[in-house]
Amino acid sequence: MNAEIIAVGSELLTPFRIDTNSLFLTRELNKLGVDVIRKAVVGDDRKELRRVLQQAMDVADLVVCSGGLGPTEDDLTREALADTLGRRLVRDDEILRTIQERFRRYGRAMPENNARQAMILEGAQALRNPRGTAPGQWIEVKGRVVVLLPGPPVELEAMFANEVRPRLEKLGHRRRLYVRDLRVTGLPESEVEQRVTSIYRQHPECDVTILSAPGEIQLHPRIWSEDAAAANKTLDEMVKGFALALGENLFSTSGESIEEVVGRELQQHRATIATAESCTGGMVAARLTNVPGSSTYFLGGVVCYSNDLKSAWTGVSPDVIEAKGAVSAEVAVALAEGIRRNTRATVGLSITGIAGPGGGTPEKPVGLVHIGLADERGTKERAFQFPGDRERVRSFATIGALDMVRRHFLYAALGKG
Amino acid sequence: MNAEIIAVGSELLTPFRIDTNSLFLTRELNKLGVDVIRKAVVGDDRKELRRVLQQAMDVADLVVCSGGLGPTEDDLTREALADTLGRRLVRDDEILRTIQERFRRYGRAMPENNARQAMILEGAQALRNPRGTAPGQWIEVKGRVVVLLPGPPVELEAMFANEVRPRLEKLGHRRRLYVRDLRVTGLPESEVEQRVTSIYRQHPECDVTILSAPGEIQLHPRIWSEDAAAANKTLDEMVKGFALALGENLFSTSGESIEEVVGRELQQHRATIATAESCTGGMVAARLTNVPGSSTYFLGGVVCYSNDLKSAWTGVSPDVIEAKGAVSAEVAVALAEGIRRNTRATVGLSITGIAGPGGGTPEKPVGLVHIGLADERGTKERAFQFPGDRERVRSFATIGALDMVRRHFLYAALGKG
Repeated sequence: MNAEIIAVGSELLTPFRIDTNSLFLTRELNKLGVDVIRKAVVGDDRKELRRVLQQAMDVADLVVCSGGLGPTEDDLTREALADTLGRRLVRDDEILRTIQERFRRYGRAMPENNARQAMILEGAQALRNPRGTAPGQWIEVKGRVVVLLPGPPVELEAMFANEVRPRLEKLGHRRRLYVRDLRVTGLPESEVEQRVTSIYRQHPECDVTILSAPGEIQLHPRIWSEDAAAANKTLDEMVKGFALALGENLFSTSGESIEEVVGRELQQHRATIATAESCTGGMVAARLTNVPGSSTYFLGGVVCYSNDLKSAWTGVSPDVIEAKGAVSAEVAVALAEGIRRNTRATVGLSITGIAGPGGGTPEKPVGLVHIGLADERGTKERAFQFPGDRERVRSFATIGALDMVRRHFLYAALGKG
Repeated sequence: MNAEIIAVGSELLTPFRIDTNSLFLTRELNKLGVDVIRKAVVGDDRKELRRVLQQAMDVADLVVCSGGLGPTEDDLTREALADTLGRRLVRDDEILRTIQERFRRYGRAMPENNARQAMILEGAQALRNPRGTAPGQWIEVKGRVVVLLPGPPVELEAMFANEVRPRLEKLGHRRRLYVRDLRVTGLPESEVEQRVTSIYRQHPECDVTILSAPGEIQLHPRIWSEDAAAANKTLDEMVKGFALALGENLFSTSGESIEEVVGRELQQHRATIATAESCTGGMVAARLTNVPGSSTYFLGGVVCYSNDLKSAWTGVSPDVIEAKGAVSAEVAVALAEGIRRNTRATVGLSITGIAGPGGGTPEKPVGLVHIGLADERGTKERAFQFPGDRERVRSFATIGALDMVRRHFLYAALGKG
């Protein structure tokens, strides 16, 4: 079974807003064995909408529309589908009562406009919307299915789960998508690609998507299959091969973020951590505290932007800053040791660098970042030269610092410490 | 003139990746007076691509494709357009030499595959690609224009600027899009909408897009016009009306971020700032230091997640934490005053709250956040009850804290301090 996803709304044709519902819908449809072959975005224009709907029904078994079910004159998805199918819209009195009831609950009278939302296509099933006023619609026509869903993500996602998924499951497709989510750091995308290509080439039934962000690369091997056991076996073999090829750069085979992996390691070792950041300005602490429950291992951190505060908060000597510069191996080491001493954390982590655009020199260019890590056995320090603008350098440095903590525990476990 | 944008690539039909080139292309096309009426995403499938291209050429004056110009067998945009137009692909020897030369510069021989990238449609103009190997193509057919661009954003954006924009300008459309970018905080979206609707209804030639993120709402009024002076006059009037309706909640009429506005205020007042964060875990410091040059006013901050560090770093008494709880007005005040004293900053800013999912009680539920602001004249404190999950609460609290600084300077200027 294949599908086309249509996002409706003139705001989606501006430079300011993008259709993200289709990512959720694709993931859910794939799980149900439905392949997405095309996506379209169209404005609040009845003629254009009609044309896009007709074109979609010419090629796809399933057409899923999001948006254009609101109460205003701009909301034309119902009418355009009625035109396309040559069917009438009929008021559904039960839905009308539900909408009126919803307004009553919030102590307001239903505006006249909202009555439009009770108009259902002849032959369609109305889909309940517990999170809003617009019902969805499900209509089967000549062996094809058209589904209309509301645009707001919270409404669309609840309606899909409650009303659409069970109906699609009843259609009973055994073919499903099987997928893994691998995360890699410390290697450029081209290097990752080179290392894994020969492995996935051995499995022509498998696709691999490679996504890259500053400091992190995601690998998504995917197989369409009717046989869950066979698909999972192939994927497990591939993941094993990827793990060998990528070595310690592979930090998750189950889609965890780097801060989740670091948090898990800290918890397993009953260790705590504290941070002293300069150029990342709090981003490392913010990432660590993204994780629910991080208060069990993250004690706190300082963002010491000024040199005075570097000294005051971590005890780094002003003479060292003067002699070596705030961005130096010596200061990174002193910051890491100082924050560890100051907080009595198991691990002290420090970042000092030049994020740009200003502040670079020939000897210390923009992108130079020193990361330090102190524990009871001593202090490691590493210098990086990251590419890109201020935002990219800060992102690279943030992931680089978290990754240094991950590798610290990995090497300790391997006895390479 | 109207346009359809087609993004080509099977990875764009997965749950992992979205087409963002169309946002850049829409902004640039709008500036040139071209209206985007439809967008499509299609996989690396020659038949589907042909169908989408044909459908686009049926309705749009300009068709802009991104992606599918690479050297591999998956890259089929050239071939599909050749099918659609019934034209041949011809090898362009000059382009072939350019590609070979590019590989030579990097010390490698050109793989045979890359020769495909020198194939140009009969009658097409090749578009130079200074950032990669794939040239683009510009072809005029029966009064319509089809443009093929490479998928990687750095290549696409440079090629658009150097090769496509000048050609579109020569077509000489005087109709242009005029737009403003307003930013609002401290009001829910429905309230913003209600306050501005009657104003923009007076200008039926103007569209307004409203986007909302946790803690911030953006308003984009837009007018298509051939008359720059008239469009700007109308937009200026509308912005004046919006400013009256939104009052102090409007923090920028030129698309600035809240941290940029706060940074400007601090600089104008020759003031410095330091932060003491608990639930936001460094996000406020990270936002402040997003701005290049922020080291002139941001001294530093502490992320005091543990109660011990709250006391150690800001001098808040353990008795107060014990008696009132770490999330309390008293602790917010003590944190703000303590970090100010500790750093000698002009302004001390503090955030303490319950981000969730754990840690809530009936008296202090998840989403409760206290924000404190201390300066030489005293300390203000405000309690908020933010909705949503951990991520949303942390985002709301971050923007709420930055907004408190902005209002502090605004009230001082108005003598409301």
